[in-house]
Amino acid sequence: MSVTAPAGFAAAGVGCGIKAAGGLDLALVATDDGAAVPAAGVFTGNLAAAAPVRVSRAHLEATGGRASAVVLSSGNANAATGSRGVADAERMCELVGAGIGALGTGVLVCQTGLIGIPLPMAPIESGIPNLVAARAGGRAAAAQAAAAIMTTDTVPKEVVVAAAGFTVGGMAKGAAMLAPNMATMLAVLTTDAACEPPALADALRAAVAGTFNQLTVDGCTSTNDTVLVLASGRSGASPGPGTLGDALAQACGELAAAMAADAEGATKVAHVVVRGAASASDAHRAARRVADSLLVKCSLNGEDPYWGRVVSELGSAGVAFDLDRVDVAYGGVAVCRAGVAVAHDGEAVRTHLAGRAIELSCDLGLGEGAAVVLATDLGHGYIDENRTTS
Amino acid sequence: MSVTAPAGFAAAGVGCGIKAAGGLDLALVATDDGAAVPAAGVFTGNLAAAAPVRVSRAHLEATGGRASAVVLSSGNANAATGSRGVADAERMCELVGAGIGALGTGVLVCQTGLIGIPLPMAPIESGIPNLVAARAGGRAAAAQAAAAIMTTDTVPKEVVVAAAGFTVGGMAKGAAMLAPNMATMLAVLTTDAACEPPALADALRAAVAGTFNQLTVDGCTSTNDTVLVLASGRSGASPGPGTLGDALAQACGELAAAMAADAEGATKVAHVVVRGAASASDAHRAARRVADSLLVKCSLNGEDPYWGRVVSELGSAGVAFDLDRVDVAYGGVAVCRAGVAVAHDGEAVRTHLAGRAIELSCDLGLGEGAAVVLATDLGHGYIDENRTTS
Repeated sequence: MSVTAPAGFAAAGVGCGIKAAGGLDLALVATDDGAAVPAAGVFTGNLAAAAPVRVSRAHLEATGGRASAVVLSSGNANAATGSRGVADAERMCELVGAGIGALGTGVLVCQTGLIGIPLPMAPIESGIPNLVAARAGGRAAAAQAAAAIMTTDTVPKEVVVAAAGFTVGGMAKGAAMLAPNMATMLAVLTTDAACEPPALADALRAAVAGTFNQLTVDGCTSTNDTVLVLASGRSGASPGPGTLGDALAQACGELAAAMAADAEGATKVAHVVVRGAASASDAHRAARRVADSLLVKCSLNGEDPYWGRVVSELGSAGVAFDLDRVDVAYGGVAVCRAGVAVAHDGEAVRTHLAGRAIELSCDLGLGEGAAVVLATDLGHGYIDENRTTS
Repeated sequence: MSVTAPAGFAAAGVGCGIKAAGGLDLALVATDDGAAVPAAGVFTGNLAAAAPVRVSRAHLEATGGRASAVVLSSGNANAATGSRGVADAERMCELVGAGIGALGTGVLVCQTGLIGIPLPMAPIESGIPNLVAARAGGRAAAAQAAAAIMTTDTVPKEVVVAAAGFTVGGMAKGAAMLAPNMATMLAVLTTDAACEPPALADALRAAVAGTFNQLTVDGCTSTNDTVLVLASGRSGASPGPGTLGDALAQACGELAAAMAADAEGATKVAHVVVRGAASASDAHRAARRVADSLLVKCSLNGEDPYWGRVVSELGSAGVAFDLDRVDVAYGGVAVCRAGVAVAHDGEAVRTHLAGRAIELSCDLGLGEGAAVVLATDLGHGYIDENRTTS
């Protein structure tokens, strides 16, 4: 069901011709009556933010955190497209708003695809009326929407979380790890919880920080990354910020795991765990450094327990570090203690590394800071997928 | 000639059995009479610095910047080897010092190879007397030394710079880009200029900043990176700091270019030029971000002028940025102006990208800051070389 599982939402997915190869490329998630409801977004930190990011941010600001719908398209990022790109994204919002009986500023917009190519507006102009007409509740409509935002994803990503008295639904696409050609991750969440916009924004930020922001593949930050949530209030439940945040985090976590599992260019997904850091931010920075390391990624691809590269990355991560206190383990088997090699069960390590899910744990021995980052390996597949855009 | 070209130096290279496959693995650069002369070093910023780095730093500090010799070995990094590793590196210095008639603290040490494996001291103990006995002036001895520090380098890297009244010689190995398995870059420079230790240290730092520190492949900082210089004073010339610095920079620049040209895993070397940044540090940071980007590296490998990735990296580099002012060009052909695509000669761009030497220029349109970083592409070769250590 995903985005239509919470009460009060409809969805649709159609093909309009943005993708040269054809297929679904236009999606809608909207309140079923066009009413503007509390909404919040988390957007890319990239200063080259795409037109849809700029437009969605402006709309949320103009409405004080309310929206009636999200329109999404795949195949063109509408990034590095100048003032024309902004006008095109605004036009999409106007068309959707007119179709569902809402203001253009009540519509948010997400786009994913190639950067630097003007948006083909003719197919979009003719496609949006079809999209609006197709909107419906239920499983099929949500599935069409989730399929329409895919780029090189091999499976759609949908989630439903049943919480105490309310429901959260969500759909997502991509991730830098999955589709770096179209390097964007987009997610739209819906809930029938009742919640004021500021509390919704806080809950979403916390949920994203603990989930999507712990996925890394190539360290690249897309121009288009966007996570949005709309809250219809139809369940009648008014959960506290903690309860709502937990439900959103569970939904985001499942979508992030689905992204990792669909990493086309990758053969492994590693949980890089850093414990014992001087602070939580040190732990996160160190885990990111290890997870983003080309050399560590190559070793994962080769199933080689070369922990020397791991300590080298930890030592250059810009965090408090004392090599003499560092332990490293693969799948729970310690290979380095107090900064030096230790005798260990080599066969157990090889067996663990031969699997698809890897755990690489580092203890810095300095404090209580801990973090986990999901990382993929680096193999020929990643390169083959990304060396050309054609 | 390299390190023996300046008056007052001898060199040697022998094989002692550190490398499992055999071959030269022990090198020496020493003053021809064992006298301690002004010396300086620039070392890795990695907090997991290897034992030889810690020992060389301590020796330079103890002597106030003087040294009689540098002993180098390849095949084992002596990193993450704990207190035993430090004792082993000290022992190498003692043995060399005894052989050439100098104090152990007058000997500096550089090592490169795998991390986390205790140094095999038996072959080194028996090899050092042979190394000391083999030291000589002239071309052949220098060539043996340059060969003995190679790991996956395919050619030795040597340089001689004839300056006004004095000479600079140098040898180097590797770079993260060349031999990430043994991710170290080592360089030893000699000069017959006369110079006090503090001025020599300043000149070396400036030379390294403008040359070796502008090479990037994978963003990894080795545990062992070291650049050393010894100044015999035998030419009688006492160049000012600017003159000496320029000669050292020329030598370092030629060695850095030789490293880039020997990038085994790479098919392209790109000069990533950033101009118009708000500051020089912004320019350097932005150029590094582009040069380290997996996606940009994949595009270079695929000869694909996907400038969208370039502006995305510039926008997330953490520097002052306004997409509407950004220009991007490949080989002098502008593909993006003021943040949007421009009509251009596609054939000229394709021809340029088909070559081995690529120029990727970005103008941020904000100020006078400029920087150049050398980058390699990312192809199957890099992965094949780095996925396992065996």
